[in-house]
Amino acid sequence: MPNAEPLLIVGSIAFDDLDMPSGTFRDVLGGSSTYSSLAASLFSPARVVGVVGSDFPEAHLDAMRTRNIGTDGVERVAGKTFRWHGKYSADLSSRTTLDTQLNVFADFRPKIPASYRASPFVLLGNIHPSLQIDVLDQIERPRLVAADTMNFWIASEPQKLGEMLGRIDLLIINDEEARQLSGIQNLCKAASDIRKRGPSHLIIKQGEHGALLFDKGGTFFVPAYPLEEVTDPTGAGDTFAGALVGYLARRSSSIDSPHALRRAMFFASALGSFCVEDIGPKRLLTLTRVDVASRIDAFRALVDFGGSLALD
Amino acid sequence: MPNAEPLLIVGSIAFDDLDMPSGTFRDVLGGSSTYSSLAASLFSPARVVGVVGSDFPEAHLDAMRTRNIGTDGVERVAGKTFRWHGKYSADLSSRTTLDTQLNVFADFRPKIPASYRASPFVLLGNIHPSLQIDVLDQIERPRLVAADTMNFWIASEPQKLGEMLGRIDLLIINDEEARQLSGIQNLCKAASDIRKRGPSHLIIKQGEHGALLFDKGGTFFVPAYPLEEVTDPTGAGDTFAGALVGYLARRSSSIDSPHALRRAMFFASALGSFCVEDIGPKRLLTLTRVDVASRIDAFRALVDFGGSLALD
Repeated sequence: MPNAEPLLIVGSIAFDDLDMPSGTFRDVLGGSSTYSSLAASLFSPARVVGVVGSDFPEAHLDAMRTRNIGTDGVERVAGKTFRWHGKYSADLSSRTTLDTQLNVFADFRPKIPASYRASPFVLLGNIHPSLQIDVLDQIERPRLVAADTMNFWIASEPQKLGEMLGRIDLLIINDEEARQLSGIQNLCKAASDIRKRGPSHLIIKQGEHGALLFDKGGTFFVPAYPLEEVTDPTGAGDTFAGALVGYLARRSSSIDSPHALRRAMFFASALGSFCVEDIGPKRLLTLTRVDVASRIDAFRALVDFGGSLALD
Repeated sequence: MPNAEPLLIVGSIAFDDLDMPSGTFRDVLGGSSTYSSLAASLFSPARVVGVVGSDFPEAHLDAMRTRNIGTDGVERVAGKTFRWHGKYSADLSSRTTLDTQLNVFADFRPKIPASYRASPFVLLGNIHPSLQIDVLDQIERPRLVAADTMNFWIASEPQKLGEMLGRIDLLIINDEEARQLSGIQNLCKAASDIRKRGPSHLIIKQGEHGALLFDKGGTFFVPAYPLEEVTDPTGAGDTFAGALVGYLARRSSSIDSPHALRRAMFFASALGSFCVEDIGPKRLLTLTRVDVASRIDAFRALVDFGGSLALD
């Protein structure tokens, strides 16, 4: 990775208990920063900031370290690791939270190690917007700050969320969050509204239906890859975000090109398509850049119309 | 249109009564062959075969004729024209049929005028599969036959539908129809199953989420155009199909290129995006090729990632 710049990722590290149509899976490695960093590290050195409890196996952190992920920012504190228990519908199109145990995550205050403070690329995972701001206060001005959020913060912390939006370059949310945040049903209008609040770039994810980018260059769309088997959508959004910013960090010399973010979206969608192929982050843990290049070839075919769209 | 070949379209001609969030609209010009022919005629001479009642204004047929649509195959019989009454949900994502009056359409038996029998391109709109077969029996072997169908025929006429599938080149249906027809939830697997039954090309429409093509060249995706205002989705699918086959007929000299159908899907999606901008076929009736070229430019930007997807 000749020009690859490091990427700071702040978010949750968790155990997930997953009730899937294919079976039940307990103590699955989860959390937004886990998925994001595993995806990002295919492209650039990732640096994770998060918290785990005394029950969290060191082997998981070892696995991350062997995959180009720095864990100096992962705090281990007495108590249990954040745990989420979810149940998916038969067609995997919806899920219900059965239980959330914040545990050590309840008192999480991100502490950015001194060696991470000059990270040129930053991804703020879905945590309290005050904590996202707290991270930005601890670091030097990066080249690009991307952030995620969720319905819970949109409803309960509109003021802090608004402050956070004013300090980021790219917001990555899903369609329902975009509608809730803007109060506007139409996604194009919702995007205009949200971009006025701060982020010059907005990506609206639509799950199996792809993702839209809105920026000064206009509107861009990347499809999701049509898969024959989808096993577990958990973490696909975090994987998308991690791969996106990781790819931008890898190609840091060209991020001012209007196509940079558009190309990154293909890699983000490609990594998301791998993520859903197995339970938890299992597929991401074995993924190589050769696999990624092969999926990107398939994406290229998926959108290839021969270059010209002439009427005659 | 130097190389544009004529296109035969068989389907319904109707009055639609539309209960929209924006108001109620009565006696709106409707029917699959109306939408399909208005879209197709932007690209190639269209020839419509259908039936209307004594209540159908000649002015509607005049409007079609001035737009490069042949109406020699439109039979006028005593009685009332087919009428559909539907009500849309507030966000236009679903609709309920309040009333269907088949009227003169109940006894419709397509009679292909002698001058239409050598049409090189054929679009069989959503009518009884026996009637679709009946059309194929009346014509000379065309270069390309495309067909639509619906859940009602999939459930009630599986045998006749199977026979029809064995005689067409391209099936254009939506995602729910593909799942129902194949009995398979996953669209990639459903597509493989359906293609084995006859059509070498299959397009699965996903409404506001675009459309997928499955053929021997692999899988291709075209997005829907993200619009700021959607007024009425009625007829968008028929418009898509009409524009698709109309574009192929216009570019008949190159339809053996693997990109021909892929390019046609952009024009199909573009016309679909115009259709939904106003009530019924209102926007299609004022549409020009200049408008189409401008929307195609916007589509080009929507999918433009600069051509290369290099990792480094």
